[in-house]
Amino acid sequence: MNDCIFCKIVKGEIPANKVYEDEKVIAFEDIEPQAPVHILVIPKEHITSINDINEENSDIIGHIHLVIKTIAKEKGINEKGYRVVTNSGKEGGQTVFHLHYHLLGGRNMMWPPG
Amino acid sequence: MNDCIFCKIVKGEIPANKVYEDEKVIAFEDIEPQAPVHILVIPKEHITSINDINEENSDIIGHIHLVIKTIAKEKGINEKGYRVVTNSGKEGGQTVFHLHYHLLGGRNMMWPPG
Repeated sequence: MNDCIFCKIVKGEIPANKVYEDEKVIAFEDIEPQAPVHILVIPKEHITSINDINEENSDIIGHIHLVIKTIAKEKGINEKGYRVVTNSGKEGGQTVFHLHYHLLGGRNMMWPPG
Repeated sequence: MNDCIFCKIVKGEIPANKVYEDEKVIAFEDIEPQAPVHILVIPKEHITSINDINEENSDIIGHIHLVIKTIAKEKGINEKGYRVVTNSGKEGGQTVFHLHYHLLGGRNMMWPPG
């Protein structure tokens, strides 16, 4: 995906403040943080959104959640609490069309969630 | 989990407007909807939150996302867009301590997500 900025972050062509990386996923700070902790966790593989999840690639979702759990602990928000959000499509608020999970914490998250 | 209201919904002891069910998960309408479409998808197994996800049970997360994709299509919001949210712990806004994913759509979701 030549024009995908998250694919460029995966390839190191665009800088990001990485907080985690393994062979399947990468996590980095959101450049417009909405909470004291605001991390994005993405698959290295280009998957557009949940609409592109299928039986063959759905394992990555569980793995992403294990990584979220690990980062929440590292950031000291695992016990206090945190919110995990993923947007799909325009009305969902998706702005980068590469699947990404927002991990938000460090403050009381409000309701409704946007 | 005797006192868990979502476990009681799984067992049929508390009514819910179910929109999907299989052997592993169940989905039903949120009783305080925050958008025209507001569905909760939960594992039948009692898992408290993402903090309780591990290598052994993480497959359920991928399955939940496949169910979310299916419901989004059935509700006619898969193309327009939707938001998926899960809260962990008090600051995350979790009020029922049985893992659940909110599927919200049918309107433009705002930012920040709460």
